[in-house]
Order: sequence, then structure tokens, then C-alpha cells
Amino acid sequence: MAVTTRNKWVYGFEEEGGGGRDLLGGKGAGLADMTRAGLPVPPGFTITTEACRAYYDSFDRSISDVLWQQITSALRDLERASGKKLGDVENPLLVSVRSGAKFSMPGMMDTVLNLGLNESTVQGLANQTGSARFAYDAYRRFIQMFGKVVMHVDAELFEDAFSRLKEEKGVQSDTDLDQTALQGLVETFKQIVQERAGQPFPDDPIQQLRLAVEAVFDSWNTERAVAYRNAMKIPHDLGTAVNVVAMVFGNMGEDSGTGVAFTRNPSTGEKQLFGEYLANAQGEDVVSGARTPKSISEMERDYPEVYESLTDIAARLEAHYKDVQDMEFTVERGKLYMLQTRSAKRTVQAAVKTAVDMVSEGLLSKREAVGRIAADDISQLLMPQFEPAAVEAARDEGKMLAKGLNASPGAATGKAIFTADKAKELGERGQDVILVRPETNPDDVHGMIAAKGILTARGGATSHAAVVARGLGKPCVAGTETLLVQPRQRRMRAGTITVREGEEISIDGSTGEVYVGRLPTVLRELGEQPDLLTLLSWADELRELEVWANADYPRDAEVALGFGAQGIGLARTEHMFFETERLPVVRRMILSAGRAVALERALQDAERALASADPSRKPRLQAQANEARRKVKASDAVTAYHEALDRLGEVQKNDFRGLLEVMEGKSVVVRLIDPPLHEFLPSHEELAFKVEALHESAPDSKELAEAEEELAVVEALQEQNPMLGLRGVRLSILYPAIVRMQVSALIAAACELIQAGKDVRPEIMIPLVGHPNELKVVRQELEKAAQETQTQYGVDVPYKFGTMMELPRACLVAGEIAEDAEFFSFGTNDLTQTTYGFSRDDAEGKFLLEYVERKILPENPFQTLDREGVGRLMRAAVKDGRAVRRDLKIGICGEHGGDPSSVEFCHQLGLDYVSCSPYRIPVARLAAAQAAIGEQERDR
Amino acid sequence: MAVTTRNKWVYGFEEEGGGGRDLLGGKGAGLADMTRAGLPVPPGFTITTEACRAYYDSFDRSISDVLWQQITSALRDLERASGKKLGDVENPLLVSVRSGAKFSMPGMMDTVLNLGLNESTVQGLANQTGSARFAYDAYRRFIQMFGKVVMHVDAELFEDAFSRLKEEKGVQSDTDLDQTALQGLVETFKQIVQERAGQPFPDDPIQQLRLAVEAVFDSWNTERAVAYRNAMKIPHDLGTAVNVVAMVFGNMGEDSGTGVAFTRNPSTGEKQLFGEYLANAQGEDVVSGARTPKSISEMERDYPEVYESLTDIAARLEAHYKDVQDMEFTVERGKLYMLQTRSAKRTVQAAVKTAVDMVSEGLLSKREAVGRIAADDISQLLMPQFEPAAVEAARDEGKMLAKGLNASPGAATGKAIFTADKAKELGERGQDVILVRPETNPDDVHGMIAAKGILTARGGATSHAAVVARGLGKPCVAGTETLLVQPRQRRMRAGTITVREGEEISIDGSTGEVYVGRLPTVLRELGEQPDLLTLLSWADELRELEVWANADYPRDAEVALGFGAQGIGLARTEHMFFETERLPVVRRMILSAGRAVALERALQDAERALASADPSRKPRLQAQANEARRKVKASDAVTAYHEALDRLGEVQKNDFRGLLEVMEGKSVVVRLIDPPLHEFLPSHEELAFKVEALHESAPDSKELAEAEEELAVVEALQEQNPMLGLRGVRLSILYPAIVRMQVSALIAAACELIQAGKDVRPEIMIPLVGHPNELKVVRQELEKAAQETQTQYGVDVPYKFGTMMELPRACLVAGEIAEDAEFFSFGTNDLTQTTYGFSRDDAEGKFLLEYVERKILPENPFQTLDREGVGRLMRAAVKDGRAVRRDLKIGICGEHGGDPSSVEFCHQLGLDYVSCSPYRIPVARLAAAQAAIGEQERDR
Repeated sequence: MAVTTRNKWVYGFEEEGGGGRDLLGGKGAGLADMTRAGLPVPPGFTITTEACRAYYDSFDRSISDVLWQQITSALRDLERASGKKLGDVENPLLVSVRSGAKFSMPGMMDTVLNLGLNESTVQGLANQTGSARFAYDAYRRFIQMFGKVVMHVDAELFEDAFSRLKEEKGVQSDTDLDQTALQGLVETFKQIVQERAGQPFPDDPIQQLRLAVEAVFDSWNTERAVAYRNAMKIPHDLGTAVNVVAMVFGNMGEDSGTGVAFTRNPSTGEKQLFGEYLANAQGEDVVSGARTPKSISEMERDYPEVYESLTDIAARLEAHYKDVQDMEFTVERGKLYMLQTRSAKRTVQAAVKTAVDMVSEGLLSKREAVGRIAADDISQLLMPQFEPAAVEAARDEGKMLAKGLNASPGAATGKAIFTADKAKELGERGQDVILVRPETNPDDVHGMIAAKGILTARGGATSHAAVVARGLGKPCVAGTETLLVQPRQRRMRAGTITVREGEEISIDGSTGEVYVGRLPTVLRELGEQPDLLTLLSWADELRELEVWANADYPRDAEVALGFGAQGIGLARTEHMFFETERLPVVRRMILSAGRAVALERALQDAERALASADPSRKPRLQAQANEARRKVKASDAVTAYHEALDRLGEVQKNDFRGLLEVMEGKSVVVRLIDPPLHEFLPSHEELAFKVEALHESAPDSKELAEAEEELAVVEALQEQNPMLGLRGVRLSILYPAIVRMQVSALIAAACELIQAGKDVRPEIMIPLVGHPNELKVVRQELEKAAQETQTQYGVDVPYKFGTMMELPRACLVAGEIAEDAEFFSFGTNDLTQTTYGFSRDDAEGKFLLEYVERKILPENPFQTLDREGVGRLMRAAVKDGRAVRRDLKIGICGEHGGDPSSVEFCHQLGLDYVSCSPYRIPVARLAAAQAAIGEQERDR
Repeated sequence: MAVTTRNKWVYGFEEEGGGGRDLLGGKGAGLADMTRAGLPVPPGFTITTEACRAYYDSFDRSISDVLWQQITSALRDLERASGKKLGDVENPLLVSVRSGAKFSMPGMMDTVLNLGLNESTVQGLANQTGSARFAYDAYRRFIQMFGKVVMHVDAELFEDAFSRLKEEKGVQSDTDLDQTALQGLVETFKQIVQERAGQPFPDDPIQQLRLAVEAVFDSWNTERAVAYRNAMKIPHDLGTAVNVVAMVFGNMGEDSGTGVAFTRNPSTGEKQLFGEYLANAQGEDVVSGARTPKSISEMERDYPEVYESLTDIAARLEAHYKDVQDMEFTVERGKLYMLQTRSAKRTVQAAVKTAVDMVSEGLLSKREAVGRIAADDISQLLMPQFEPAAVEAARDEGKMLAKGLNASPGAATGKAIFTADKAKELGERGQDVILVRPETNPDDVHGMIAAKGILTARGGATSHAAVVARGLGKPCVAGTETLLVQPRQRRMRAGTITVREGEEISIDGSTGEVYVGRLPTVLRELGEQPDLLTLLSWADELRELEVWANADYPRDAEVALGFGAQGIGLARTEHMFFETERLPVVRRMILSAGRAVALERALQDAERALASADPSRKPRLQAQANEARRKVKASDAVTAYHEALDRLGEVQKNDFRGLLEVMEGKSVVVRLIDPPLHEFLPSHEELAFKVEALHESAPDSKELAEAEEELAVVEALQEQNPMLGLRGVRLSILYPAIVRMQVSALIAAACELIQAGKDVRPEIMIPLVGHPNELKVVRQELEKAAQETQTQYGVDVPYKFGTMMELPRACLVAGEIAEDAEFFSFGTNDLTQTTYGFSRDDAEGKFLLEYVERKILPENPFQTLDREGVGRLMRAAVKDGRAVRRDLKIGICGEHGGDPSSVEFCHQLGLDYVSCSPYRIPVARLAAAQAAIGEQERDR
């Protein structure tokens, strides 16, 4: 940045045109605002962030002459306003030099108080205040602070000297030291500075000021400040402003004091001055904890006039900022001075209540209130969670065992149990259980259902554990890599801690944290939170996107309805297959499927050949067809396959009936079977070991024969990259009977409900389509099944056919796909996986988190939609799809549907709805409204 | 299609305006051409393919009145031209009714000869020809053919009756039957028709004609015709034309005859009339094989005049068609009639020679010659292959064992050996060995190197076996699912055949076929084929795309140069890791990598913290850094890691030196390590079994400890979807030392060669980039390494950095990526995998082939580039990339680089080069020229 005389780098608090927080920093802007609003603020000025940036850009990191001129000129104004003079022996001005960046970085940067003192001015201060003890106390505080901040002397050295002195004098408290002792301490402090810094403590107040300003500039780039900005995602090139303010003293007797106050309760949102103060004290005394501050409410009794002024100022600040304020003040001999005001950090609950209250108070419009809340935060209001204080305490006590992936939100606590059977047994006896496994597979589902939460050592956010847990609405921490889970030994270990079976643990699926012991939880529901309900109702008026839910079971659908779901955007039919009593049937189906399908296809082929054959060949082909039919009829596999399918059809019909019934009048999008079939079977390694063992122990047993057969099927179904293998629509094409069963069950459920007078809207969704022909072929087959079922019941069902858009190729040929699809639903989990070439299960544990940490990726694309890559595909698909079918309904059902930034992007793309897990629905409703508001504001 | 009188559906051979093969079919167009060129063709007319399509579109599949009027009108013209009349008792006209579609479908459709005969006209024919025996022989032939083709009577019934008659009469040959016998046979045949067809044989010649035309139309859609078209990818909606031609007879004595002739030798391309003829015979006699035809060369001696006419006609036809012709002719009493001419099917060798000869003869331009050869075919000229006759014989003898994926082309034969060690042992003793494995892994590579070919039961075209075999240039048949390979039992089985170790087998990597026994092979090289060299040199003049090679070793590069490679587009560095003596070093590196990288990163972090720390914290941080440095220095893992890397660096330098030396003056694109590290380690299951076994047998052994450690590393590296896991640039980011070693080795090799006066052009290619930051971070790191090495040698190396484009996201953000990439190389294998969401290894065996068979996909997208999906991404990447960097060099190095259709697409996209395996280079050169020609022709 070129340093020219045209730059104005210093603004007095009373000056107009200083701009806002960008230039003056939060503290400077607040002081200027308050000064101009006529509130009692000590005189002062602000050196801008621009000056700080120029400082960093300068060759030798120094204050330029131009800047220094402006500072000294502002200092003269300050002296005029205060009637005192920096360095004046008679009437010395003392100032504070405080940092203040655009975004609050509490405690991260430096401050110097009482600047201006030296051997001469300390006398003047003694005269001014009538207390030499006060003056020397101020002087030693100044040397201590300046020594540390500006001259980089280890703070402990001052503390040690201080302690030694108190010991010597045999006193407990600072206040018990008299003037002489303090005077001696000042000398000791100066010696420490001389020794450590290698130079004397500067006496010239102007030099003090210059060094302090430079030190505050420097403090922008200390290690801890950089680390903090990294953590809070604050840019590193903003710089800090510096505020030079005339000192006022809260430690000038019992009619003085200092404190902080919120205009409303930052925890509950209640409209009541909230905070604490300490009489006869400076700010550091409050911070140091040497004395216990009193509640602001006591101030009302003790200092009614000051309290009244503060209440009045609070109201004026809220009216000005339209937001809850966090104020710092000092009372000097009965006079109130405001030293800072800023928007108050507060709990989500308080934020919601405040926003709603401010609308009824006329401070905010509904639109402003809706825009005020960080959408992501309100999920906190709806999930069971640990009491924050208990979490703090557990951390302090070293009870945090490990941290894994936050795979399914919510908090759970219970006995650590290492096998699904045991978890089921205890769970059914009413005990709280956390199922802990190296990783889970379908064999564990009964244990997962019985558990309060699930903890695994391996697997990412789409691992079996994570997906099933989210489906079940149970908290889950997955991929806890530092955890060694040893089910055989019935224990787990992390570092030096061992947890044995039956010991209690607590897992937080929202943060991924695992604690030893039982932490207390807090439960909340939407209905219990009228303010949130009000806010969401305003959001509903503003938003254009519909919000649907991903829900597999009627009970999930009910929860979703409670949260305001306008439809089911994704019902994963296969999750129903994982339930304990069904899994054996599903496995029978899969074990027989290969042979059954081969035999049936042979019959079909023979019949087709017969139909189109030359007459002369008919007899031979007829014989072949007969033989094929005989084989089909005689096959155990065919019988087993269809028996299993029939049984699954019955249970699926009931599942669907439940879903449709709960969602009466609303769309229910049912996705046909998606995962590779081997997911329902035991693992290859497990079976191989079993076969090996049986070869030893029972070489001629039926059990071995069965295990070998099972192993052969698993081997045939084994895949190198199951994510990209035989799943989704590919299964539908190769095993059409499975999806025919599913569609027949869905349509039958709809028919029965329509006969009972219900309004049902089933939508059939085909997953993993990449080529339009896949959809065409499967839809043809399934339309037949739907037609047959309708004919059987004599009922017309208003169903639709659509497809997941979850492969890049689907997006690239969306126009062609739209010819056979009545709706698109972006499956952004898989679309992100294929667009990026990331297997989420592998990537998150192995490199993705490191990528995000090292800023190679701006964020985890599985949490926040990648607008540049995945988003470009989505945009093309929306455009091409709607060009072919103008009324194409388009939604999203990946996990991004509940992420505010992704919801905003979906709004911008013009989607019709987002679908997310039930607990994210309020977040999505709010985010959708904010997206609409944002767009309207950009359009203005 | 609306049937209107405006349609002209019948054309006489002499008529202009009948159009070409689309409308008249191949045979009809040829007859019309020859007639109009004044060649001796019997008079006749053609019913168009359009008429056939109208026939199929008509309500009742019948000849419309309008068409029938046109046919009878054309018949009157034919009668006029021949001076005979259909059904005329005195001077009967006989005609043939022949099918003739646009594309030749030999033997697939029907033909009726001698049509027009009945009890009256047979007498007329006897009078005309002076031979009643001849007339009745013609009559029985007619009934036999018409009965079968038109009336669907089983042909065997006629044959049986014929045989019985010969037995009765005690004669051997047809010609030994006299007129009376034949007359009786006619009656018998008519009875057979009456019995089988349930109606009398039609006597009315006009009715015969109508039925025969309908029958030929019908024959377009017989089962075998449909199957043939499916196999040859001929559309089903073209229809066939019907040719009605006045009969001429080659069986009217020794001055008559019939034959087929090629204008040049269809096997060698030699310019010499080639074919065979049979005196006193009709076409069927040649086909039936009852008499052995003579070579055309003998005709020159026996019938010099006819031979001279034929030679003259051959020259005129070649001049007209500018192509080798396949002619049918009949000589009736010394007069030559041409019955058909068409472009001759020929071997690739003949096609190449002919094209080159025709240029020197002035018949073709170079451009036409280049356009004439199916590019894909010439690869046949370069691969060792089985003698076709031997293959035929083996098939006939039931020696075909199985058919798998054609994973790496070429033919190999040798002893079936089931373990790599044994293969190596025998191979090194000079024996021909085929390594047969259920599937291969890095442990098998020494056996693969020693074997002549590789056969596996599992794995797709990118399986380890396939990839390594292609790298080694060895034939490979992979994924032979019907094969049960049992290495422990030292045997394999397919169906009822068992092959034991040591028995000879033959595998054809070009077709995927596996035979029992040793088939003789034919070997060819480019240098031995001057015609091909000439043709390719013309192609080089015409093409715009450069053709580069994928080659990992100097020996591959030499082969590639021999085939005309203009650069190396892909050298896969990790293939070098798989070699026997290196694999242990690679494994040591991987086993130590995790701990080494963690320790080194801890040190880096500590040093970084120290550098930016506040002075007060420096001492503590200095101590931490010292401790981290101490740990690094003391760590066995760090030592092992760098020792292994140093050793690999040495061998890689030599590898690279070899490559650069061979390719002097040309670009050599070296791809940094790509596959996940676990590919270099034994499988998890294998290790788990080993550990289990050692627990039993040697519970306290060092071996167990090592195996357990290895298992732990494999477990940590294990991935659910390795294709989408920790590989490519992700490895470079997490294990930078590996790629630093590779780049240093490459640059060092280049320095040494430059010092030796060589011109080398290394290009460094980063695989699997999805986000521009990945490239940026890695390039920064590697530029440093390159710089250091150059400084060390004091040499400037003209290297480049570029990236594979193999993820959809890379294509979507190509503009940003181009900022850091000097070249793009499309990795269309992976790009197809991710765009389609297909894991090739899983998809090809499990569903992709079925998709293609069922026409769900038009073709296998791993063989022929998917222009709509993958191609759309490529187009966007080319456009966006060049917009940012105008001189961006763009190529393709997926297997599509050797596929003609894909090469054409690359030309259309404006790529700079295609890179393919050495043996595909001539194909690519030709295909690139044809693409350029095609574009220029479209532009005209």
C-alpha cells in the first residue's frame, strides 16, 4: 500500500467519516458511535486498521512520519478535550492504548494502560487524585504491563518480585501494600526491565506512546493471534486498529468501580440488564479473580443513579445497533464512562428469543429477525446434548477419551458394550448401552437398535455405523482412529486409558467427542420452544424452497412432520432390510438370486427364441423351452428366491403403508434398493476363517457345506470398489424381481390407503442412473408391475417415476434423462464422491481432514456443497433437464440438504426442495429463508 | 411410410437414377452399374429396399397393388430385353429372385432360381436348350428351392427323397440320373410340398414370382439374419432389395460354367485374377462341394477367350469402383455373363497392399488409400497371432477351453503353470510358460516376466494382471469367469475339461480365447511390411494429431519408436516398483513410511512454531524442537524410510536415464506414483491367515512380530474403494518424500544426459488432481527438488509440469488448474470410471458386458470413448484450459488413445496428441489421418 499524505489514518472519536469496523475496528467504531450519540465516553482517538496494514507493508515495520504526525495531532485534540497533557508534571494525561480489530479476538492482542507515567508525572497524578499510593500503584501497573507487552519481559518476573515483596512485608493482598512499598516495587520493576530488555524503561511519555502503538500493531501477528484467526477463519490481512483513550479510574474509592454488562441476558435472552461490576477496581482486578465481582442487579440497590444511567444507555445502544450489546464501563468518582460496546455473543436460545422479542418491540422487522440467526446453530436447540458445564468439567478432569468423526448428531451416555448381542440383551432389559465396535456390519444392527449410541474405531461418515445410526436417529461417533477396540478382550484403549465392558461412557455425535463416565444430558423439542416456532413461521413466509425429510420409517416421518417436513424426499428401502428379523430372509434371497436369475433368464431367452423361430426349428426350440421351464420349476434356488421376495414384499408393503399414512397429502419419494448385495452378507474374510475352521472341526458337516456355498456367493459378489460396482439401477436391471417386489409393495400400500379414503402420493426413485437407457429399461419393467398391482386392486394411484442424480454422467446427459424422469433428486453424497474421485469412507479418515486443515480444500465437500465442481454439474443438469421437461421437479436429498450454505446454493439453482434428516429441518427452513432474503437484497 | 403412387420402387438395371446401395442393395447396384457400363449382364430389375420397408410397414405385410403394378411393368421390359416371356410355353423366361441388402449378409437371406417353370414351361425349356434332362433337372432344383424358401418345407425331406432315388437307381452322382428319374423326382417333390405345406405347388409363374418376392422380403427378418446383423452391428431397419434376373445357365455343357473371381488376391493383395470356376455347373454345385472347382488360372489355359474377357472386365470394374472386386459370373455356351460384383472382403495385409498398389497405378490418391483401411485392423499385422486355420481346427476339435477378457493383445502358447515361482524356474530354463492364476498380485510379477503370457480367472481389463501384462507387452487373458483355477491342486477346470500343470495351452490376448494344446503362431514386424510403412507415411502427411506412446521401460520405448512414436505420453513410474528385486525395498519404504512421516512432520511443526514464537516462549519451543529432532534421528523408521527411498532413487534414475536416452529430442512424460500403497503389500486376508497360523506354530517368533506389524500397516492402509482413495496426488501430498525422490531422480538423469550432450525433454505429470490447490502445493514442493538437483549438477533442464485430467472435477475447474499446469493429459480410463461411476474391474465382469449385449449402452465406454458424457467434460476442459493458457499442450493417455473412434474424437476436440501402447501406434497414426480427412470432407 503506497503511503501518501492523502491517507487519513487517525480519527478522533467525535469525528464523522471514520467509517465502521473495517477501518476503526470493533472497539474504535463502538467508541466513536457512542461519542457521537452523546454517551459518556472518555476522549480519545483511533489509529485505523489501514495504518496497521501500511505498517506491515513498510520496509522496516515502523510508524511512518506521516502517521506519527497524525497521531501527535490527534493527541493534541485529546489533550484539549481532557484538559490534561501527556507528560505534564502538574496535570498529566494518562491514556490507554488498546487493540481493536474488525472481528473480536478476545484476549489475543495487547493493551497498555496508564501510559504517560514517569518519575515526574506520577507526582502530578498523586496531586490530581490526592493519593500517592494510588499514583504509585498505577505506575507499577504501567511498568508491569508495558514491560511485558512492549519490552517483552517475562511477566512472571514481575509477579515473582511482587510476591516476594508481599512476603517480605507479610501481607496477603496488593491493597495492603503502602506507598513506600509500591515505590520500591517500581524501582525493582525498572531494574528487571533494565536487566532483561537490556535497556532502561523509557521515561518519555511520547516515546512510550510510540512504542506502545507499535507493540499493539505487532500483537496482530503473534503466534496465538494467528492461531486464533486460523481457528475462527478470520483473514490474516485485516490488521488491527489502535485506540488511544484518556484513562479513567475505577479504583479511586468506593464511589468508583468498573464492570461489564449485557443489555439482555446472553444465556436466556431475557430482557434485563445482565453483568457484573466491582467497586474500587480496575478492569484487570475483575479479570484476575482476586476479588469476586457483584451482579449488576446489586448495583441497582447500591448505586441507583449509575444503574439508571446504564439502563438508559443500554436502551439507546440497542436502538442504535438493533442488537444486544456487550458493554464495558468504568465509574470514576460517581461518573459513568462507557469504554466499549459491541454486539453480544450469546447462546442460540438467547439469540432466538432476542430476535423474536425485538420484532415485537418494533426494533427489527421479521425479515431482519430471520436473517439474524446463524441457521446452523438452531440444530443445537433440538438435539439432546450434554450440559456444557459438565463437558467443561470432564475435559478439565482429563476424562476426554478420544475424538472421532461426528457421524450422527446428539449426545448419548451408557455402558460401553462390545458385542451386538450383549448390547441387545442389556438394552432390552432397559439399560442404557453404548455399542462400541471396531466397525459395524449388518450383523450388528440389532445391537445398534438396542443401544443409545454407537462408537466405532473405523469407518467414515458414510460407513455402515454412521448411515444406520443416522437412520435410527441415534448419536454416533465413527472412525475414532486413536481408539483401539478389542471386542474379544472386552475392552477399548486410548492412550493410557482403558475402558472395560460395563463401564460408563458418554459420546457426543455432534462433536465426535468421547468421554469416560456419564455426562448429564439436556433434551429439547420444537413444541417447547415457542420463540423458535415463531421465528420458523416467519422463515416459512419468506422462503421459496420447500423442505422435505429423509426418513425411512414411519417413526422418523412423524418426527420430520413435527419439525415441519413438507414431504419425504428419500426413503431408503434397504434400511428396512437390515432389521434383525428380516436380515435372514434378505440373505436367503441373495444366496439364491444368482442361480434363480440365471435359470429364469435362460427360460426367457428360450421362449423368445421360440417365438421368432423359423417353423422348421420350432419343435427343437419348443423342447429346449420346455426343458428350461422344467429346470426353473424344479430349482430350489428359484423357489427360495421367490419365497424370500414374497415375504419381503409383505413387510415392505407394511413399511410403505406406514410412511404413506403418516405423510398423507404429501409426497413420499421411495428409493429402490441401492447398496451392493454383499453388504447384506458377512465379510469374505470372516467366512473364509469360518470355512477354514470348519474344515478342521467338522469336515463333513452340513454347516461347512453351507458356509462354503455362502463363501462362493460372497466371492462372486465381491468387488474391488463397491461404491462403483453392482448397485443402484444396475441391480434393478440384473435382478429385476427385487425392484418389481418393491414397486408392487409400494403401489399395493397406496391402493389400500386410497381404498380407505386417504390421499397418498408415492414417488418411485431409481438410484445411480448414468445413461438414459438404464432409466428407460427399468421404468418400462416397473410401470408394468405398477399397472398390474393397480389392476389387482382396481385403484388408480397417482405415482411418479424419477431418478437420483448422483453421477457426473447423469448431470451431463440430464436432458435425455428428463425424457423418462418426472423428477430429479440430487444425491450429492455420491455426486461429490464421483466428481472428486473421493471415497468418503476412505478419504475422511485418510486425507480429507488433513486437506481441509492445510487449506488445500476450502472445506469438507461432504459437509458443504462444492459449488465450483459439483455445483457446475448441478447447474447444467437443472438447465438441461428443465429445457426438456418444463415442470420437472428437482430436489436434493444428499446430506447437504441440511447445510445452510448448500441450501443457499440450492435456492440459487432454483431447486424445488431440499430434503434432509428430520433434525436438520428447522435449520433448512431458516437457511432457505435466509437464501431468499439474500437474493432479494442482492437484487435491490 | 405412406404408400403413394409417387414412389418408384422398381428399377431396371439399365435405368439411370436408381441411386446406390442404400436403395438398390449391394447386388442390385452392382448389376445396374455393370449394365450401364456395357458389361455383359443378363437383363433384370431391382425392387428397392424402400419397397421392402413399405412391405414391413404395411398392415398385413403384403405387396401393395402399386408395387405389384411396377413389378409386372418391369417384368414386361425384362421380357422384351430377353426376347422370352414368363410362363410362355414356347419360349419361357426363367428368372432368379435374389435378395441383396445394403451391407453384404452372405448366406443369411434367401434366393430362388429357375423361377417360371411348371409342367408346360419345362417342355419349352427342353426345346430351347435341346435337353429334356436339363429342363427337368432345372425344374426339380426350382421346386426344391421354392419349396424350402417360400413354402417352408424342411429341406431335408427333399434331400432324403433325392438320396432314396439315387439308391433305388444305384447311382452315385446327380448327373447320373436320367430324364425319367428326374421327372419322377419332380412328382415326388410336389407331393412332399402338398403334404408338408398343405397346399399344391403353385403352377402359375406370376404367382410364383409374387410369392418369391414376399419370401425374400420375409427373409430379412429371420432369426439368423437378425442375429447376424446384431453381431455385425448392421441396423435392423434397412430392409433388403430384391433382384429379378433372367436366368443364364452354366450347366449347359462343357462350354458352359460358373465361378467366382477376385480382381486381386484377397489374401495377399497380389494383382492377379484370383478365384475358381466349375465347368458345366450352376452356382449351387460349387457351393455343395460335390465337385471340386478349378483355379481361375487354369481357365486361362482351358478357356482363353473367356479368361481374357474376365480380365478385361476386372480392370474396368476396378477402374469404376477404385476397389478390389469380388465377382460372380456364369458362362452359357461360351458367352460370359456377370451376375454380381462387390467390393472384395480381404485380409488386412491384402487391403494395405492393394491400397498402396492402387496409388502407384493411379487408381487412388494417397488420401483415398489412407481412408480405405479400417484403422483398427492393422494392429493384426503387428501382433504375434495364431494361424487362423489352426484356430479353426482347434475350435472344430472342441479344444477351446474358455473365453475371458482380451486384456493384453497377442498370442502365446506354452505350459500351463500355476505358481509364479515355478513359472520363473521353467521360464529361466528357456521353456515356454503360460502363468495361470486365480488373479495376480505384486508377488507374481517375477513369474509374469518369465512367462510368455498370463491367464487369470478373475479381474477386469485394469486388473493387476492386465495392467502389468500390457506394460510387459505380454498377451493376457483375464477375468475368465468360467475357469476354476486351483493352484494348490495344480490344475484348472472349465466345464468337463481339466488341464494339469505342465500341459500346453494357447491364449489369444486379442480375442480372449483359451485353447488346449499348442497352436502355431505368426510373428510380424513393421519393418518387414513396406506397404504398411508406405501407407503410414502417407497418414503422417495427412494427420494433425501427434501420436505418442505409453511406455514404462526403455525396451518399450524402443518398440514404440520403431512404430513411430513421437514422444512418451505416459511412463508409469510405479510399474518399476513391481520388479522382483525392487519390491522388497518398496515394501520396506511403505512399512516405515507412516511412522517416519509422522515424526518428520512433528519436527517440521515444532520448527515452524519456534520460528514464529514470542521471544518469551522460545526456550520451551526450542526444547520441544530439539526433542522432535532427537526422535527423528533416533527412529529406525525414519532411517529405513530414507534408506529405501535412496535406493529407489538410484534405480529410478537409471530407469529414467534409459527412457530419456531412447527418446532423445522427444518429450517423455513421467507420471509420479499413482496407485494406493497397499497395492504393493500382500493382501489383508493373506496376512491375517499368516498371523493366525504363526500364533499356533511360532507364538513367540520374530516372524510373527513382523507379520503382525505388517498386518497393522496393511490394516491402516486398507480401503473400501481404493480407486477413490489415497492415491495419485493425494499420496504426493501426504508422503512428499516419495515424489521428491522421483523428481530428483528424473532431473538427475536429465542432467547427466545433458552433460553428455543429449537433448532431453522430461515432463512431470501429477495424477488425480481434483482441486487446483493440490497441483499448486505439490508443484511448489517439487519445483524445489528440481531446482536443488539442477544446482547440484550445475545444469539447466528444460522440464515441464502438468497434470492428468482424470476426474470430473478436474475438467470442471480446468481453467484454474491450467494456471499451474503446462500440459493436460486426459486419463480417460479413470475419467470414464468416475464419470459413469463404474469401477472397471467390477463392472466389466459383473454387468457392463451385459449392458452392451442388451444395448443399454451403445458400446463399452472403456473401449470407445463416451462422447456424450466423458466427452462433454473433455470439451469443457479443453476450452477452459486454453482460455487461461493459450499454448497449453493437451493429450490423452488413457487406453482410448489407441481406439480409432476415440482418436477421431480427440482430433475433433483439437488435442495435440494421443498416447497409446506401442503396438497401437500404427493404428493411431492411421486413425488420426482418417479423422483429419473426415473433417476436411465435412468442411467441403
